[in-house]
Amino acid sequence: MASQSVFEGWVARDESSVSGNMRWMSYEPKPFEETDIEIKVSHCGICASDLAHLRSGWKPADYPIVVGHEIVGHVVRVGSTVQDHKIGDRVGIGAQCKSCLRPDCAACSNEQEQHCKNEFVTTYDARFPDGNKAYGGFAKYWRGPGTFAFRIPDNIPSEVAAPMLCGGLTVYSPLVSNGAGPGKRVGVVGLGGLGHFAVLFAKALKCHKVVAISRSSSKRIDALKMGADEYIATAEEPDWPTKHANSLDLIISTISGAGFDMEKYLSLLDVNGTLIQVGAPEDPIPAFSAFSLLRENLKIGGSLIGSRKQAREMLDLASKADIKAWVEKRPMAEANEAVVDMGNGKARYRYVLVN
Amino acid sequence: MASQSVFEGWVARDESSVSGNMRWMSYEPKPFEETDIEIKVSHCGICASDLAHLRSGWKPADYPIVVGHEIVGHVVRVGSTVQDHKIGDRVGIGAQCKSCLRPDCAACSNEQEQHCKNEFVTTYDARFPDGNKAYGGFAKYWRGPGTFAFRIPDNIPSEVAAPMLCGGLTVYSPLVSNGAGPGKRVGVVGLGGLGHFAVLFAKALKCHKVVAISRSSSKRIDALKMGADEYIATAEEPDWPTKHANSLDLIISTISGAGFDMEKYLSLLDVNGTLIQVGAPEDPIPAFSAFSLLRENLKIGGSLIGSRKQAREMLDLASKADIKAWVEKRPMAEANEAVVDMGNGKARYRYVLVN
Repeated sequence: MASQSVFEGWVARDESSVSGNMRWMSYEPKPFEETDIEIKVSHCGICASDLAHLRSGWKPADYPIVVGHEIVGHVVRVGSTVQDHKIGDRVGIGAQCKSCLRPDCAACSNEQEQHCKNEFVTTYDARFPDGNKAYGGFAKYWRGPGTFAFRIPDNIPSEVAAPMLCGGLTVYSPLVSNGAGPGKRVGVVGLGGLGHFAVLFAKALKCHKVVAISRSSSKRIDALKMGADEYIATAEEPDWPTKHANSLDLIISTISGAGFDMEKYLSLLDVNGTLIQVGAPEDPIPAFSAFSLLRENLKIGGSLIGSRKQAREMLDLASKADIKAWVEKRPMAEANEAVVDMGNGKARYRYVLVN
Repeated sequence: MASQSVFEGWVARDESSVSGNMRWMSYEPKPFEETDIEIKVSHCGICASDLAHLRSGWKPADYPIVVGHEIVGHVVRVGSTVQDHKIGDRVGIGAQCKSCLRPDCAACSNEQEQHCKNEFVTTYDARFPDGNKAYGGFAKYWRGPGTFAFRIPDNIPSEVAAPMLCGGLTVYSPLVSNGAGPGKRVGVVGLGGLGHFAVLFAKALKCHKVVAISRSSSKRIDALKMGADEYIATAEEPDWPTKHANSLDLIISTISGAGFDMEKYLSLLDVNGTLIQVGAPEDPIPAFSAFSLLRENLKIGGSLIGSRKQAREMLDLASKADIKAWVEKRPMAEANEAVVDMGNGKARYRYVLVN
C-alpha cells in the first residue's frame, strides 16, 4: 500500500477539543525516515491522558495535535533499516514512540527507556529531535520509529490489545516491579481503565489476593467478575481503614487529587508495604503524617508507563492467560462523542475507536 | 552487686521537664522477673525523641517518666532464664525493650521485632503487658528484658556505643534495607545526631558517594571530616535542586515538617531512587506533586528504628570500621542543662550523659 504525505485524523486545535470539538481533517506527518514504519490504524484506545492533553490539563498543548496512543494496526511501510517488522505485521504503539537507545544511556541500556533523558518522545503532542511533530492514533495512519512498535500475539483481539499498550502497561509495570505474584496481597484503588487492568493482571500474575477498592459498590459485580477476591466500597463502609488494616502488601492507586486521603489507604498496608501511584494526577498529593510511613516501614512510589521489555512480557502474559480486557468499541467517526462520554466516566472500562 | 527495689534517676513529672525541670528522685522499677537483667548505667545518649516525650510532643506522656533509651552499662543482675548475658557484661539498650518474640508473629519471626503488633514496648514512657511502667536510662540503674540488650564490642567506647543504640540504628537500618553499599550514591539531609551517623555508616558501608545536605554551610567542615564526599548548603545555593539533579540513589532525611520541600529533595534522586524519612516528625509531610514520583519511578518511605539483627550488625560494623561517633560527654548530674542545650541545637553531634 502506498504511503501518503498527508494523513487524515481527528485534529485538536484548542482546549475546546475535549468538549467534542476535534475536527476530522488532514495534517502533515513527520517525513518518513528509514528507521520508521507506517501503520494503517485499525484500533485506538482512549486514555485519560488523551483528555488531559486535549484540554491542556498538564501543560499547554502544542496545538494542532492528534491524540491517541493505544494504537493497533497493520504495518504498511517499513524503512530500510528496520529489522523487527515487515509489511502486514499486526503491531501496537503505546505512549512512548522514541528514546535514544544509546549504550551510554543509563536508562536505555538498562531496559528503562521510559526514563531516557536524551530523547524521550511521546506518541503525540511532542516533537522529535529534528523539530517535527509526533501525531497520535485518532487517525487513519500512524508513522514513527519502528523501535517502539510491539508485535501483537495472534490470539489477542486488536480491541483488547490496544488499551493494554498504555493503560495495561502503566499498571503491569509497577505490579511486576514491586513483586506482585504468589503470596502477595494486592489492592487496586479506582476501577477505571487502569484499575480494571490492574485487577486482571494481578490475578494473571497469581497474586494471593486481589482487592478492588472503589468509592461506591456500583462496580462490585464487575470487579468480582474480573477476578477480584474482595471489594471495598469506601463511601459505604465508614470503618474500612481499620476493618481492612494491614491486609495488603501492595496497592496500585489509579486515583489521586485533593480528596485522596493517603493515611487511610496507607493503613491498609502491612509492614514493608508499598503504595504506587499511577495515572495522571493533576492535583498534588495532600499533606499526610510521616508517622504513617515510619510506623510500618511503608513506601509511596510513582510509576511512569513501562519499559519495552515489560510491554512485551505483558503481551505475552495476556496471550498465555487469555486476558479479556473489558472494552467498548466505538466507531472512529464518533471520536468526539466517545471523548465526551469518557470524560463523563461512562467507559466500562475502556473505549476503543475502530476504523 | 545487690539489686534494689527503688531506683534513682531524673524523673519528669510534666511538660515543663523539657525546660530543665526534671527532678533527681527515687522511683520504683518494674518487679524483677527471671527473664530480666539489671544494668548499672554508665552512659546514656540524649535523643530528640527524649525531648518529644518530656514535653508530650507526640502524645500525652504517662508521667512520671524517666527518659533515655541509648543506654550502656554493665550487667549487675541476671534472671535465671536469661541465656545471653552474664554479670559484668557491657551491654546496650535502645529504643525498644520488648516484643512478643513468638514464632507465630509475622514481625518477630522475620527479624522485624520493631513491627511486632503484640507486645511492642519502648524503653520508657510505656507499660509492660502486666501494666508495670518501663523507665529509661537517665538513671543509676536500668531493669528490663534481657532479650533486647546487645553486647558492646570491646573496642567501641561506651560513649560512642550509647547513641548508636537508637540514633545509629535508626539510620543504619534504612541504609542497609535500601541497598546502601558500593556503587550507591547516598544523600543525608540534616546533620544532627542521626544525620552524622548516616554519613559515618554510609561511608563505612563503602557507598560510592555520600553527600551531606544542610541548611547553612556551618557544618561543612565537620561533614567532610566525617567522610562526606560533598556538601550542599541549601540556604546558600538557590539552584541546588537543579544543580544536583538526578545525582543520588538514596536519601536519608532526618528533617521534616512544614518547611520540608519534598519536591526539591526528590529532584536530587535519579531514576528508581528512594527517599527515606527517619526521626521524629511532629508536622505532616506537606502536599507535593505526584508527578515528582511518577516521572522517575521514585519512592518515599519511612523507617522505624531497626531490628535486633540490624543492631548487632551495626555494632559489628562499627567495631570493624572503627567508627568514631562525634559525641560530647556531659555529667549525668547536668542532665537538665544538657536537655535544654540539646533543644537549642547545640549538640555536636550527640550528648551522652555519663554517670
